[in-house]
This record gives sequence, C-alpha cells and structure tokens, in this order.
Amino acid sequence: MKKPVIGFSKLDKSQKIDWLIENYFSSNNDVKKIIKEYFNKNKKLQNLHDEFAENTISNFYLPFSVAPNFLIDDKLFTIPMVTEESSVVAAASKAAKFWLERGGFKTIVLSTEKVGQVHFFYKKDYKKLKEYFKKIKSKLLSDISFITKNMKKRGGGIKDIKLINLTDKLENYFQILATFETKDAMGANFINSCLEQFSKTFKENYDDPSDVEIIMSILSNYVPNCLVKAEVSCKINELKDESIKDPKKFAKNFIRAVKIAHIDKYRAVTHNKGIMNGIDSVIIATGNDFRAIESAAHAYASNNGTYKSLTKASIKNNIFKFSIEIPLSLGTIGGLTKLHPLANLSLKLLGEPSSKELMKITAVAGLAQNFAAIKSLITTGIQHGHMKMHLINILNLLNASDREKLKAIDYFKSNNVNYNSVNTFINRLRDV
Amino acid sequence: MKKPVIGFSKLDKSQKIDWLIENYFSSNNDVKKIIKEYFNKNKKLQNLHDEFAENTISNFYLPFSVAPNFLIDDKLFTIPMVTEESSVVAAASKAAKFWLERGGFKTIVLSTEKVGQVHFFYKKDYKKLKEYFKKIKSKLLSDISFITKNMKKRGGGIKDIKLINLTDKLENYFQILATFETKDAMGANFINSCLEQFSKTFKENYDDPSDVEIIMSILSNYVPNCLVKAEVSCKINELKDESIKDPKKFAKNFIRAVKIAHIDKYRAVTHNKGIMNGIDSVIIATGNDFRAIESAAHAYASNNGTYKSLTKASIKNNIFKFSIEIPLSLGTIGGLTKLHPLANLSLKLLGEPSSKELMKITAVAGLAQNFAAIKSLITTGIQHGHMKMHLINILNLLNASDREKLKAIDYFKSNNVNYNSVNTFINRLRDV
Repeated sequence: MKKPVIGFSKLDKSQKIDWLIENYFSSNNDVKKIIKEYFNKNKKLQNLHDEFAENTISNFYLPFSVAPNFLIDDKLFTIPMVTEESSVVAAASKAAKFWLERGGFKTIVLSTEKVGQVHFFYKKDYKKLKEYFKKIKSKLLSDISFITKNMKKRGGGIKDIKLINLTDKLENYFQILATFETKDAMGANFINSCLEQFSKTFKENYDDPSDVEIIMSILSNYVPNCLVKAEVSCKINELKDESIKDPKKFAKNFIRAVKIAHIDKYRAVTHNKGIMNGIDSVIIATGNDFRAIESAAHAYASNNGTYKSLTKASIKNNIFKFSIEIPLSLGTIGGLTKLHPLANLSLKLLGEPSSKELMKITAVAGLAQNFAAIKSLITTGIQHGHMKMHLINILNLLNASDREKLKAIDYFKSNNVNYNSVNTFINRLRDV
Repeated sequence: MKKPVIGFSKLDKSQKIDWLIENYFSSNNDVKKIIKEYFNKNKKLQNLHDEFAENTISNFYLPFSVAPNFLIDDKLFTIPMVTEESSVVAAASKAAKFWLERGGFKTIVLSTEKVGQVHFFYKKDYKKLKEYFKKIKSKLLSDISFITKNMKKRGGGIKDIKLINLTDKLENYFQILATFETKDAMGANFINSCLEQFSKTFKENYDDPSDVEIIMSILSNYVPNCLVKAEVSCKINELKDESIKDPKKFAKNFIRAVKIAHIDKYRAVTHNKGIMNGIDSVIIATGNDFRAIESAAHAYASNNGTYKSLTKASIKNNIFKFSIEIPLSLGTIGGLTKLHPLANLSLKLLGEPSSKELMKITAVAGLAQNFAAIKSLITTGIQHGHMKMHLINILNLLNASDREKLKAIDYFKSNNVNYNSVNTFINRLRDV
C-alpha cells in the first residue's frame, strides 16, 4: 500500500511533482513532461497563478472564448465565456444574433442585498436577550467601523441587523441576521469580518458572556434579495427565421417547453442546468465564484417549495416574451477579478462594468443560453447542434489529420455522430 | 455605437483576436500580448484546446492542484483538484490528514440510474395511447439497438421505459420516461440519441402521427437514483487535535452546526456551497461537467420541499459520525475525460477509476471540504484560514517582492488581513 506523505504542502512545486511521479506514475517522466508542458514560460506570471491556490502543480486550461453581438439595453457587448462544454458558446452567439435583430435584451437590477449570520445558542430569558440586543445594537455597529470605513466611502455598509429567534425549530437557537450593501465587491471577506466582530462584541459585552454560546459567523450565499431580471420580446411573426418556419407553432411549443420546466422537476433541473451553462461561463471568465452562484440560483429555484424553472415565457397580445429572474451576487473588484490577468481582461472587454452591470450581462448570458437550448430542443433536437460540435472532439481523440477532419465534417452533415460511427468512418478512410 | 459583427465564428483565431483588440481595446497591442502569453507553444496541443469550444481566443488558467493523504475504503489517494478559490485545497488536505489518522473515509454507491424523457402532447383517448405504448414498447427498444450495441457490451443499456400521464398538471401532456445504466460514461450523448430515436419511432408508428406532438427529447440531470454515500466516524475522544482541545464540546457544536443547515435555508445554501467547493474541484479536474453536478445536488437538497444540508452528523454510543449522500452522475470515459490531457492525467492519478469509484472519491472530497469548513467555523472562525490564504493574493495585487511577502506573512500572523491593512503595511515597508 502507498504511504501517507508528511509536510507535502511545504515542498516546492517541482518537489511536489517529483513526489507525484514517483508515487503514482512509476517514475514515468512522460507524465512530468505533460505537467510541465502546461507551465507558462513567464515565471512571474506562472508564480502568480501558482499562488491562487495551494499545492498547485500546473495550469488547468479551460477554453477562453467570446460570444459577440449581445445587444443589452441598447448597448452592444461581446461577452467573455469560459466553458469546457462544446456548443455552449456557439449557442450563446446564435441567440445573441437572433435577438440583436429583434430589439435585443432588456434588463433591470431588482435588488442588491447581501446577507450574513451570527449563529448562537442562549438558554436564559428571551426578554433579557431582546433588551440586550436593543442596547448593544449601536455598539455592534460602531465596533466594526474600522472594517466598514472604506466600504462606506464607496456607498456600501451594513443595512440592518436583527435578532432572530429560531427556538421553535431548534432549542435555544438564535441568530443575528445582518444585511449588507457591498457595491462592486462580492463582499465575502468584508461580510465575514463584520460578522466575526459582531460575535465578539455581542458575547463579550453580555453580563455573563458564558450565557451566549457563539457557534459560527458567516455570510450566506442565499441572496434572494440580490436579484436581476432580463427579458426579450417580439411579435410572434417576427420569430421567423431559418429554423423557425412556423413562428406561431414555435411560440406555442416554446411556452409549453418552459411550462413543463415549471411542473416537472426532472425537466426543471436540466432546464436550469442549461441556464447555468451560460451564467457560469461568464462567472468564471470574470473571476467570480461559480459555486456561490450555483447554490443561490438552485436554492432560489426551489423557493416556494417546488423546484422549478428560473425562466418564464408568455404570449400576450400577440407578443412573445421570455424572461429570467435570478439572484446573482457578483464582484467586479476584489477576489481574483483584477488579479487574474484574463479575468481582468474579461472585465475590460465588458467595459469595466459595475457589479450591477455585470449582474445584467450575466443574466442575459443565462437567458440567451436557455433560449438557444429550447429552440434546438423543439426544432432540430439537441443532438444535432451538440454532436456537430462534439464531432471535432471525437476526431481529435482519434488523432484525425486536417484532411480526415474535413472529410468527416462533410460526411456527418447527414449521418449520425457517435464515437463508433466516427471511428468506423475514420478507419475506413485510413484503410483506403 | 459599436457595430454588430457578421461571420465572426468563421474567422480564424488570430483574426478574432484582432477584431476584439480593434473594437474593444482601441487597438492596444498590450492586450494582444496578454492573450497570446497564455498560448501553449506546442501548436498541436493548443489546437486541441482551441477546439474544445467555439470562438476560443486563449486558455483560461485555473490552478491544477492535488490534495494528498485521502484514505478511502482503506486505499490511499491523492486527489486532483481544480479551483480558483484559495484555501479549498488546503482545507481538503487538512481534513484528509485528520481522518487518515482516524480510520479514513468509508463509501458506498447506492445506485447508478440515469434518466431521460420524451415530452409530448396528445389530445385523443388515453386508453388508446396506453395500449399503443404497450404494443410499441418492444419496437422502441429494438429501434435503438444500433445505438445501444456497444453500451450493452459494457454491461449498460436501457433499464426501463414508461408512459407517464401528467395531464392533471398540464393539459394533454405526457412523457416517455426512460431509465438507463451507462456504466463508466456520463452518458448524455448516448441517452439523448436513444431518446431522439424513441420519439421518432413513437410518433411515426402511431395510426395518425399528427396525434402525437413531440415537444422535446432530452436526458435529465436530476438523478436522485444515482447516489453515493461517504462517511467518517470515530470515538468522540479521538477528535482531539491541535485546534480541538475539548472534543466533547467540538462534537456537540459540530452537530449543532449541521443541524442548523437542516433547518435554516440561508445557512443550508452556504453549507452546501462549501461541499460543492470540494466536489466541483474534482469534477473539473477529471473533465466532467460541474453544471450537471451542481443542478442535481442542489435539487436533491430540496427533495422533500425544504432546501437543506446534504450532510448529516450524529453522536451515538459515544461515536461521532459525519456523512454525505449526494447524486453524482459522472463519467470516466467519453466527453473530455480522455481528451483533455490534464483530465486524463487526473484519472490516472486516481488509478483509472470506474465511474462508481469516481463517485466515491468525489463524494469524499465534498465531505472532507464540509468537515474542514465546519471545523474552522466552530473553532477559529472562517476568516483565520481564509484570509491567510488570501493574503498572498493581495500581496500579488500590490506587486510585493519576495522579501516584502515574507515580512507581511510574518506580520499578519497576528494582525487582521484585509486589502487596506496589507496595503498600509506594504507602503510603510516601502517608505523606509
């Protein structure tokens, strides 16, 4: 059996790689070559990337792509997208062009509130706690002024703090629930620092501090009041295009497809997954944290007790309307946004947006992705576009030459793509 | 105003970059230099990465890291992790080492069923439809034999197909609900191909095909029967370590922290977000699709109508137990798994696992991450570990030299880290 390693994190990068090669790859130097082939030759740049996380041994590449022609509130954008899934960027670009010709996307930020909690247990008299909270509230706020000073300058800070009694759900359990405005920062570090100070002040100033048992202090990624809405609309007739010959039927089936995602959880999950294909691509490209966005979005989708679609579609007075409402807590300063050179470049490509503007652009990417997916699903089927894109991956797996690729792309315009059919085709070519 | 671009996808990579620089960066060649600095000098390798998606202009780097010392079912693993969030890999490694010394992680795959749906509308007699489905079922299956042939050889294929009547929820709405076993493939392309053939056969063979209105055919990412469980346990006394001086109190507060994530949605979302920090890192490193995993996991968290924690903790007979149950539909063949050289390397590092084994390893990464997060939260607080890691990012943003970094790391061992405090410290150093 393999042996545990002690002090691994203290090794330098090349020692870490050597240890891996020795212990997991029978000292095979080809593996080392692969790892090193991904190093950047600019040592300073490489070092920057190494220090983003711990125990880094190389750079994992994801395709850095762009989708042009997004008309958002009458302004034209080219949206940076980072995704490993083929056909996502192509679909976004197609949806962008489709709506460019039909008035573009309209957006509105509905709210920008962030949330944090101090969780604590308290066994004594509730009335006394309530009074204490009232009394200590101003000190809670003044004690964090050294943290909030700069945020206040930018127009942000604490919005409110409340004492929440949850003893009906869990014995002796209370919260200090705080709401924040963090402007262009996602605000995680700011919020957590405030909360940790709250908990200190709150406990230390109580008559008998041992009566207040702090469990933890941390922001919430659930931000149902940090909402953005994006929508597209046009007359039903104007939906007509190459693949939509009968716009009335298309609109009807589109509405049905969205409705299905409101009543069937199996469909809703995949429907929202498609939305997140677009959203996350922008999140990663701009140096934001997609796990935070994913958890907020899916939790929001289950808001009323049933998990359902984040988008809505309707026809009224002959107007087709399609919209998304989604919580997005994003930063355009702080974190990796300025530090990752390509995230920084993404933000520049978007015109150095405020966090509100980035919420709008990101929501649009999600709506566009969902539109493209449903359009494919109810017209040609999802495999048509997807496998065309995936064909090139299969060809690369088979080490196809440029000549073989061209022949295959031509042949598979009218034939079913899967690994075996492509393999057979390429082998036949090679046998000739 | 900027002008739309026509035929952008047809441009080659360097033309695309030129167009971007001209239209969004006032022809600034420094930006071009940044984009190109991320190119791989191995042209064939770069071409492979360019073709993973569309409109790719460069490689977006995410740190490729490893977390050693994971003892899973008595076998030792070093887990590859790709994440941009500092402290995730460090936390995983610490949790791995903690449990290595306490018997390690135990896992079990509970089920491996995948799901697909053909959604259709039908206005006529339900009895007739039911009879037709019974009659056509064998043909539905035989008509896809050309797709399932290879999957069958590997032990997979269709498990069942059912007709589902959902007319009580939406007028005239039915489904063909199919379940699949896709072995080591995630199976999206396989399932979608089967479903599209189902819909063809189903419609074409009906008396009057126009009575069957197919809306769409697609897999579901919701996989509540593709479940894996991972757990750790030890005697309460054995929980003792450097930061856990009172194991009894620690266990009690740990249970409380997990319980809070079962009753409070604001906490549950962040709790599960932390789990996904670990899960997604492995998902990306192995070339799987994290949007699929995220949507399934969060939808599963809202399974019984209330969104709640994916992990559970308990104390029974003096034994502390902590476990996760999560749906994970993963592939170790197909997609990018073998095609992305570093995903391929990740799988080799894990000993070329089957999809079931990868489910286990990934669930463990999630459980470990959650353990580390809760441990920090209820002992030192989350900012302590997190800001220590983030300090280096702030130092890089300030272009700190190696000497300045060392001084800062030393100083901030006992001082509050935030952008301003670090900035002030570095400026003072530079003024000397």
